[in-house]
Amino acid sequence: MSDLAGFSFNQATAKHWPLAEMAAGCAAAGVPAVGLWRDQVTPPGVAAAAKLVRDAGLTVSSLCRGGFFHDPDWYDDNRHAIDEAATLGAPVLVLVSGGMPAGSRDLDGARGRVGEAIGALVPHARAAGVRLAIEPLHPMYASDRCVVSTLAQALDLAAPYPAGTVGVVVDTYHLWWDDQVWAGIARAGREDRIACFQVADWVTPLPAGVLLGRGLPGEGCVDMRRFVDAVSAAGHHGPIEVEVFHDRLWSRPGPEILSATIDSYLEHVA
Amino acid sequence: MSDLAGFSFNQATAKHWPLAEMAAGCAAAGVPAVGLWRDQVTPPGVAAAAKLVRDAGLTVSSLCRGGFFHDPDWYDDNRHAIDEAATLGAPVLVLVSGGMPAGSRDLDGARGRVGEAIGALVPHARAAGVRLAIEPLHPMYASDRCVVSTLAQALDLAAPYPAGTVGVVVDTYHLWWDDQVWAGIARAGREDRIACFQVADWVTPLPAGVLLGRGLPGEGCVDMRRFVDAVSAAGHHGPIEVEVFHDRLWSRPGPEILSATIDSYLEHVA
Repeated sequence: MSDLAGFSFNQATAKHWPLAEMAAGCAAAGVPAVGLWRDQVTPPGVAAAAKLVRDAGLTVSSLCRGGFFHDPDWYDDNRHAIDEAATLGAPVLVLVSGGMPAGSRDLDGARGRVGEAIGALVPHARAAGVRLAIEPLHPMYASDRCVVSTLAQALDLAAPYPAGTVGVVVDTYHLWWDDQVWAGIARAGREDRIACFQVADWVTPLPAGVLLGRGLPGEGCVDMRRFVDAVSAAGHHGPIEVEVFHDRLWSRPGPEILSATIDSYLEHVA
Repeated sequence: MSDLAGFSFNQATAKHWPLAEMAAGCAAAGVPAVGLWRDQVTPPGVAAAAKLVRDAGLTVSSLCRGGFFHDPDWYDDNRHAIDEAATLGAPVLVLVSGGMPAGSRDLDGARGRVGEAIGALVPHARAAGVRLAIEPLHPMYASDRCVVSTLAQALDLAAPYPAGTVGVVVDTYHLWWDDQVWAGIARAGREDRIACFQVADWVTPLPAGVLLGRGLPGEGCVDMRRFVDAVSAAGHHGPIEVEVFHDRLWSRPGPEILSATIDSYLEHVA
């Protein structure tokens, strides 16, 4: 088994690399799986993207992202996202649940509405064979991007639904600071909820807007091995997606980004 | 009793306002208390600053900040900070506990060392009559500024020591996202640990470095009333410090900043 057997290259790590080139590059490098983004499969179209990836011999580990339940058209948009995941052969649709409505100070209310929205999507997801994966995002995104901030909250939101239809995402970038995350990962394993495992490192200073400041594994202060061991001990042996957003990384040619990502994965994660 | 009876103006809200002018401005506006910062009382000198504030008829609600336990000279520096708090008549020294050492990935270890450092400072603080107040900072500061990220962690760190010597800070800016904060405030009340209550609002987008992006109460999404009610229900009736760091606010003349701060306090906090 190759050292890359458990690796998935998340497309957002090479934001500006066209899908066809990325698929060919991953296949040539022996990468078995990719994580896709809806906005990055739009240029060829979803069906064409699915064929491209399939023809390259790659599997799809997840599709990002559904969610954003504070948007008025969240219901239709998330149904489309589920359909796209099914077309792409993505077993998992990652949900970034959205922030608080403009002018609101009701964080509990916003969290409650996430639960209702997921409930409304469960029948369509089940019918499509796509697992919804609730992603807790770092608390610095709680107001405008994702009101689900901890693994415990994500697990509580998933709890009413079958584990095969609603799971959670474990992402080191979002969860590394939380001393409750180890108990949360163990619980997620017991409840069979780990649908997706993503890694990126925490580096400072954070850039304005705090979106594009992630590091490759090993560049920051996250104890990657502890996460890998905890997720493995929890019984999840699916692909590990490296998903890094950083302006400086994005400015490099796609093949270089892939090569650097593979190196960091092999040194700090595999 | 004036509507400002429970208000304290934290000096950092008007970073560039000289202390003598600030003290006179607060006194003229009927503000009863101020929170001071060590770097902002240095220009006149600590003893002179103490006299200035006392002569203006102001009480001191807290001194910021001790902590930064990852610095090599933390012990001497924190003993000096305790002495300065005593000289200034500040009953409370706020501790921003510091981040992880360069190159470290051991967050638990860094948190453990905070506990040891506080233990080492307790005798001097008790002798000086100054209460140490452990401040949990938002998780976005966990790597480089404060490894204490939740009220529960701060309370656990305080637990081994007498409540009169070691307490915690409740700061809305740092804690608003946490669904466990309400239980934490109630626990802090039961354990008599609330040493300082600070308010600022959460506004986005965050600026680069994420230090200077706070809003005045009412400008963001924090449910200020819920915090005020919870802290009051927990039995803490000390001053409420408005502590806002924002470049744009800082660029205004001191008297305007004070006036805007009082207005926001009266509308959203008092």
